[in-house]
Amino acid sequence: MRAVSLKAGQIYVKDDAPDPVPGFGQVLVEVKACGICGSDLHFAKHGAEMLALGREMGGMTVLDPGPELDLDQDVYMGHEFSAEVLEVGPDTVAPEAGTLVTSIPILFTPEGALRPIVYSNEVAGGYGERMLLSAPMITEVPNGLDFRHAALTEPMAVGLHAVHKSRIAPGEGALVLGCGPVGLAVIGSLQLKGIDTIVASDFSPTRRALATTMGATEVVDPREEPAFDAWMRAGGAKPLVCFEAIGVPGIIDSVLKDAPHSTRLVVVGVCMETDRINPFFGISKELNVQFCLGYDPMEFADTLRAIAEGELAVAPLITGEVGLDGVAGAFEALGNPDEHCKILVTP
Amino acid sequence: MRAVSLKAGQIYVKDDAPDPVPGFGQVLVEVKACGICGSDLHFAKHGAEMLALGREMGGMTVLDPGPELDLDQDVYMGHEFSAEVLEVGPDTVAPEAGTLVTSIPILFTPEGALRPIVYSNEVAGGYGERMLLSAPMITEVPNGLDFRHAALTEPMAVGLHAVHKSRIAPGEGALVLGCGPVGLAVIGSLQLKGIDTIVASDFSPTRRALATTMGATEVVDPREEPAFDAWMRAGGAKPLVCFEAIGVPGIIDSVLKDAPHSTRLVVVGVCMETDRINPFFGISKELNVQFCLGYDPMEFADTLRAIAEGELAVAPLITGEVGLDGVAGAFEALGNPDEHCKILVTP
Repeated sequence: MRAVSLKAGQIYVKDDAPDPVPGFGQVLVEVKACGICGSDLHFAKHGAEMLALGREMGGMTVLDPGPELDLDQDVYMGHEFSAEVLEVGPDTVAPEAGTLVTSIPILFTPEGALRPIVYSNEVAGGYGERMLLSAPMITEVPNGLDFRHAALTEPMAVGLHAVHKSRIAPGEGALVLGCGPVGLAVIGSLQLKGIDTIVASDFSPTRRALATTMGATEVVDPREEPAFDAWMRAGGAKPLVCFEAIGVPGIIDSVLKDAPHSTRLVVVGVCMETDRINPFFGISKELNVQFCLGYDPMEFADTLRAIAEGELAVAPLITGEVGLDGVAGAFEALGNPDEHCKILVTP
Repeated sequence: MRAVSLKAGQIYVKDDAPDPVPGFGQVLVEVKACGICGSDLHFAKHGAEMLALGREMGGMTVLDPGPELDLDQDVYMGHEFSAEVLEVGPDTVAPEAGTLVTSIPILFTPEGALRPIVYSNEVAGGYGERMLLSAPMITEVPNGLDFRHAALTEPMAVGLHAVHKSRIAPGEGALVLGCGPVGLAVIGSLQLKGIDTIVASDFSPTRRALATTMGATEVVDPREEPAFDAWMRAGGAKPLVCFEAIGVPGIIDSVLKDAPHSTRLVVVGVCMETDRINPFFGISKELNVQFCLGYDPMEFADTLRAIAEGELAVAPLITGEVGLDGVAGAFEALGNPDEHCKILVTP
């Protein structure tokens, strides 16, 4: 089959990618749409560094692709997908062929080993024609929801999870730094949770407009007004939860420096490089930093429900659609935040 | 009067320090004992850096000595004290002369301005014969408690505060990195809170013995067994709260790297230098970092009560006593963790 591969840093379409065959507990699906995730852009650039950090940690993470991942061989990616069931594996209970589904991007082998559908030399991802899913991980897409919107479940669930981890409560306010897909997902979930002061900061006017659409009550261009000044003006006296959805070196320290006393910082942007901080800033103001990753199955299912019931309007986030041959160009295009938010691959 | 001063990086005894005169709301006291705090050692070494960081932050901290602090003039220190009331200021309600007291190290001027008793060109601290306290901040020392032990209230309150901030609960376990006075204070409070797995790590056998005295259930020399290995052996399956009570660059990142998933790191050591971290470690394992400083008035009062009622046995922590002339030497001696834990200045 055809699938996009990252090999030695280059994105290309491989015409003879292995055809996946469903084993026990697995389902073969045809990919309908798969969003391009910022973490894939990071990985294409900083993959080797990330693997080295993972090894240094001893691989204690769901992101860990295992010691066997070889960046000089084909690496398959794509974890934000919706798909249609083609064939159910032997002795497996699963939705029948033709059903539109989505899934947490985790595949179990017939032997029960866990394989993240994130970066792999073997496990096909959503940037290809077909892939395998695990029957117990599959969720049917309800309400006749468009497959394009269903593909947004995964990134939106990241936002819901970050909001849950923040333990933000009514009466508290939020400042969201960075209005890419993750920041917008956070804003959407904050709005659903009834948070009534949501200040969002981004250099891009397009993204600030999307932030307003998703529920931000105040948007700011940090070149015109520092984000924390905008927060003081709009939210001032409230306890503050700051969501860092930028994920580049220097952001965490700038929050530690500028945040008000007792601010809770939720790090939801994925910075794969070594960073510098001044602990003294955090100590002086008794700040809290919560690092976040992913979501749990309930959060994933609840996000799909919220999208299907129209509570989370994800359509405005989709700014482009490409076939497999357009993926390399889409990786380039996503570097320009004024042009794009979420590009879907529709193989 | 005589008082120790830090001037241009040198500790010396100034024979003609200004005699403090109590104004409205203030009390003149004779210092009975004052502990030498690790943060004073840090400040003597990194004072300029700390002031620069404070200015960068905009001075939003109780530690901020204000823009006027001049390191080339006499700086008075000493914030862990017990003292005897000598004279009560005009129109002021306070314990009568002869009463043994301690206080949160904050002085209000008669005009109501707040002056931390930490580092100051003007406000006398506990490394001197006499000082001013604020009547509303004073707590009488109960139960005929020895003035030496009462002087330990402040550092022990730091430990109680860190334990409160950690929200550690029965069924969870603790790993305390560093068994200087702060780490030992944390261990004492954990034991009082009924935490039954308290692993403590320190290079020094003397400090490991003190950790056991204070309530550690397992001590480890990290040169013989990595601290997190010791934790896995002793506490393994329990949720972990890790207290970082070392405060030097590199420690936070090593915790992010080695800690189990979902560990809460409480930073109670004060690192005044720029540090390097890999956010990816924290993200991959959804770690939480709570920076801590100080305590609140209730925690201070509760700590004094616990010491006075014998729940917190602080006597073993006191390993030395010097007069004002011995302070410079004591600053040197505290560099050797096998020789000393807490040295009291008894002017």
